[in-house]
Amino acid sequence: MADQLHPVVSVRLFGTRKCFGPGVAELLRRVDERHSLRAAAQSMEMAYSKAWTITKNAEAELGFKLLASSAGGKNGGGAALTDDARRLLDAYGAYCAELRDYAERRFDEAFAFCAEARETQA
Amino acid sequence: MADQLHPVVSVRLFGTRKCFGPGVAELLRRVDERHSLRAAAQSMEMAYSKAWTITKNAEAELGFKLLASSAGGKNGGGAALTDDARRLLDAYGAYCAELRDYAERRFDEAFAFCAEARETQA
Repeated sequence: MADQLHPVVSVRLFGTRKCFGPGVAELLRRVDERHSLRAAAQSMEMAYSKAWTITKNAEAELGFKLLASSAGGKNGGGAALTDDARRLLDAYGAYCAELRDYAERRFDEAFAFCAEARETQA
Repeated sequence: MADQLHPVVSVRLFGTRKCFGPGVAELLRRVDERHSLRAAAQSMEMAYSKAWTITKNAEAELGFKLLASSAGGKNGGGAALTDDARRLLDAYGAYCAELRDYAERRFDEAFAFCAEARETQA
């Protein structure tokens, strides 16, 4: 209950518009596992067209490619993360972890009055 | 474009489940202006039943009341924020501002490679 009150922080990156957040990050991780944007999208119950659009939008806003597609091969080609996409995922993960850590450290002091309010109203 | 890349941080509070975030905060601010939960909900195009539910859920998780209703008066009664609701709004606002400030300060270093990635791929 209230004693377990805790913050959940989410971070999105914007350029001229939203371009990166938990959804795109998860999509890229799944592309990395499945070597296919279509399979990654499917596994998240996301339409392929949406997966394609948010990836292209992210690339346009960030200014670098996230996916490299390979033609041919035994599965008829597929998608792989660029090195820059890996660096972005790492940077985003570390940045989110750092913010969450800071949020946890500052939480008790910022919301200390809540325990008092509970007791007063109880 | 990419040079304006910046973080947008959102903070939600969870007890046993989600109980407070930007939506409830905005709803409370509007109750304070309009002295009515119904009018506040309407102004956000939120169903009154949803406004009532999220307020009651927040109160249950936080362990203190957010709204006090007054009967009678020229407008047939209405809703007002409790002092604890005001303290919560203030604390939440300050906490979000502090996290955003921290996120801004840490951003350039965390995502410095993005500029390099753009130049390399250009």
